[in-house]
Amino acid sequence: MRRRNPLSATLAERTDAGLRAGAFGHATSLSCRECGHQVALGPHYACPECFGPLEVAYDYPAVTREEIEAGPSNMWRYKALLPVPSDIEDSPNTEPGFTRLLEARNLAAELGLTRLWVKDDSTNPTNSFKDRVVACALSAARELGSKVFACPSTGNLANAVAAAGARAGIKTVVFIPSNLEKPKQVNSAVYTDKLVAVEGNYDDVNKLASEIAGEEEGWAFVNVNVRPYYAEGSKTLGYEIAEQLGWRLPDQVVIPVASGAQLTKVDKAFQELISLGLVEEKPYKVYGAQATGCSPVATAFKADTDAIRPVKPDTIAKSLAIGNPADGIYVLDICRRTGGAVEDVSDEEVREGILLLARTEGIFTETAGGTTVGVLRKLVESGRLDPTLETVVINTGMGLKTLDAVADRVGPAATIDPTYAAFTATGLAD
Amino acid sequence: MRRRNPLSATLAERTDAGLRAGAFGHATSLSCRECGHQVALGPHYACPECFGPLEVAYDYPAVTREEIEAGPSNMWRYKALLPVPSDIEDSPNTEPGFTRLLEARNLAAELGLTRLWVKDDSTNPTNSFKDRVVACALSAARELGSKVFACPSTGNLANAVAAAGARAGIKTVVFIPSNLEKPKQVNSAVYTDKLVAVEGNYDDVNKLASEIAGEEEGWAFVNVNVRPYYAEGSKTLGYEIAEQLGWRLPDQVVIPVASGAQLTKVDKAFQELISLGLVEEKPYKVYGAQATGCSPVATAFKADTDAIRPVKPDTIAKSLAIGNPADGIYVLDICRRTGGAVEDVSDEEVREGILLLARTEGIFTETAGGTTVGVLRKLVESGRLDPTLETVVINTGMGLKTLDAVADRVGPAATIDPTYAAFTATGLAD
Ligand SMILES: Cc1ncc(COP(=O)(O)O)c(C=O)c1O
Ligand SMILES: Cc1ncc(COP(=O)(O)O)c(C=O)c1O
Ligand SMILES: [Zn+2]
Ligand SMILES: [Zn+2]
Repeated sequence: MRRRNPLSATLAERTDAGLRAGAFGHATSLSCRECGHQVALGPHYACPECFGPLEVAYDYPAVTREEIEAGPSNMWRYKALLPVPSDIEDSPNTEPGFTRLLEARNLAAELGLTRLWVKDDSTNPTNSFKDRVVACALSAARELGSKVFACPSTGNLANAVAAAGARAGIKTVVFIPSNLEKPKQVNSAVYTDKLVAVEGNYDDVNKLASEIAGEEEGWAFVNVNVRPYYAEGSKTLGYEIAEQLGWRLPDQVVIPVASGAQLTKVDKAFQELISLGLVEEKPYKVYGAQATGCSPVATAFKADTDAIRPVKPDTIAKSLAIGNPADGIYVLDICRRTGGAVEDVSDEEVREGILLLARTEGIFTETAGGTTVGVLRKLVESGRLDPTLETVVINTGMGLKTLDAVADRVGPAATIDPTYAAFTATGLAD
Repeated sequence: MRRRNPLSATLAERTDAGLRAGAFGHATSLSCRECGHQVALGPHYACPECFGPLEVAYDYPAVTREEIEAGPSNMWRYKALLPVPSDIEDSPNTEPGFTRLLEARNLAAELGLTRLWVKDDSTNPTNSFKDRVVACALSAARELGSKVFACPSTGNLANAVAAAGARAGIKTVVFIPSNLEKPKQVNSAVYTDKLVAVEGNYDDVNKLASEIAGEEEGWAFVNVNVRPYYAEGSKTLGYEIAEQLGWRLPDQVVIPVASGAQLTKVDKAFQELISLGLVEEKPYKVYGAQATGCSPVATAFKADTDAIRPVKPDTIAKSLAIGNPADGIYVLDICRRTGGAVEDVSDEEVREGILLLARTEGIFTETAGGTTVGVLRKLVESGRLDPTLETVVINTGMGLKTLDAVADRVGPAATIDPTYAAFTATGLAD
């Protein structure tokens, strides 16, 4: 994994360890989340002692609000807190992040909340929060001298990897299940001529990816062997929420859960901001959102157990359909520690959530966002989310990617002849 | 048009003229582009003297780079130069703009250009530059006390109007041709339950809209009776390009042309920046891009005439398919004055343009962007665009909306069994 590719030619010499100084910014090592064992920075993701997941550890620099505000209008304004070099902006990337935080007065009124915001990641370069994590993975792949940038995916991740790889000019191979819908295939295939359809389901694709990662030299699978760097990208959602609120934390935040990585990283971001003195310390509650057809974490939460039982997903919220979530246990920890919850909603409620957000705030989300809005509503209605506290809900994806979820629900109010008389007869003018 | 709607309840009292002070910022009047006749600010769009198009005129304030840079990361950072009130951020809107300006090194290398940037408006709230113009139209509708926010459209405009109207909480009615593809219908119908399908083509829909605008009190049709305010929104594309280049103008800019409004407004923005002292004066060339199947302006440019002959559009670039472009004559003026050109490309070249941009820069554009990239390539190849000068190309829309244009062109490189052996047999690992 340590060979340089031509793309890195502009980067400075590597150090003896095979990495140039500052290749991972202020990151110091990879640390096991289970046993605390430390591993040197590299293409590692599992603890050699206990097989626990590795996470990036830092020697945090002093960083001020002013320094961040003077940065670019994308996620690199927080580069000092990410495992990326200080010259990250000079390497071609998709420049994701610093998306809108919209105060959602209509949705708040509809749900009976006092103050509500939507953090809207649907306007990222490939229209999901995955552009953030992929940007960190791309940097890691570069610094490790990877030859190939790759992922197994069913949708959003494939789009983000293929786009970022094209822009970076690195060989990019994306693996998908062969039965994936044509539009989703096209949305990756436009970026890369190395899309591989695998006969089998997502688990088969995933297994094949791990095998290739083990066999081939120099392949960076974003969500496999560079996963620790990749996952850190989601911290920027947390940083942005705090900065856009005027450098303070919300009281409550509702986040979709597939692997659970994003939720844990938003919490990590809030904790970092507190310890760096960038926001005032305060209690906040974290809520996780799942679709009932794939709700292993919500089920464990409700059963008050730590044992997350894997499920076979059956839901329209395909981007959240991970039956055996790697970070599920940490999601439970965080939601319990902060006084939040993990809740799930039916596919019907997912559809209603999509339409509710579109009709009230003009944001067209995909099924993941419908899930999150649906869970927000359910939490309010059941009294488990305090409607008088300031709440942020994260929209992680975009509706054009899951059009079928609502295509049969909406349409013209009337079909008329092109005359004024025909129009007035509809009653829509009144 | 002067009644207040409940949404405007937070706004200050209107003046005697029916408008509150500063309702249109530093705008002073509407001025006829043909005869110079002045009309008071209001819901007017045609000169009462000569029927020429009206344009917003200003008493420009002094504004500094620092003031702009201290503004929000959206188009309202330029509010002092737009026909909007100074408290525009307090009224719910989609907060479009300040999209990425990406240096496009791969595309530049492919085309043989020294320095090239893509201004990427595909990441706007509803994924096209239309969110900018609609945001200005919404402000005008509010200030004029309009009851209804409306438009005739076949696609991007409908999405932008329906989304902005939903978020603003104003009654929104969108008119489309009844034979519009289902996905495009859905992408508007999610936002509004007042989508009206009209039996007829786009011209029929447009005619009906004008009729309703004339008959009904208080309807703001964004591209009809509030068009002068609407069109000003495109100036922000020009401001952003200059600011993101470090407060300087590019040497050359390539812009798609439908009605031609956007191209004229980017030029207006550059001129304003020069006269306000925000950038140094310098020569720049403006190029217009059309699809051959709807190229009335390119045809007139090549024939060296001012007479633009209306055409019946026949191209896959549907968002550019205006056969009788209102601002075509001004596009000719600008492209001739600056030493640019108006060029057109075939549908085949449009498709190639889409794939070229995706493969080189990881940006998935719609047919309008494919047209613009195709024209850029053609201009370079024919020697009419200087490859050693700094060039900006504007991407105005997003590929998921016109998926069919490339759906048959791209796909998996291989379909394999889920085994490592099957993968190595593809040769993709080499
Ligand atoms: C749109 C969207 N939202 C949310 C998620 C959940 O992310 P995580 O796996 O970090 O929980 C995913 C992907 O997995 C996604 O595609
Ligand atoms: C994506 C896209 N690009 C460009 C244009 C052209 O804009 P104009 O009519 O201002 O020339 C349009 C709309 O008309 C559009 O939808
Ligand atoms: Zn361990
Ligand atoms: Zn006139």
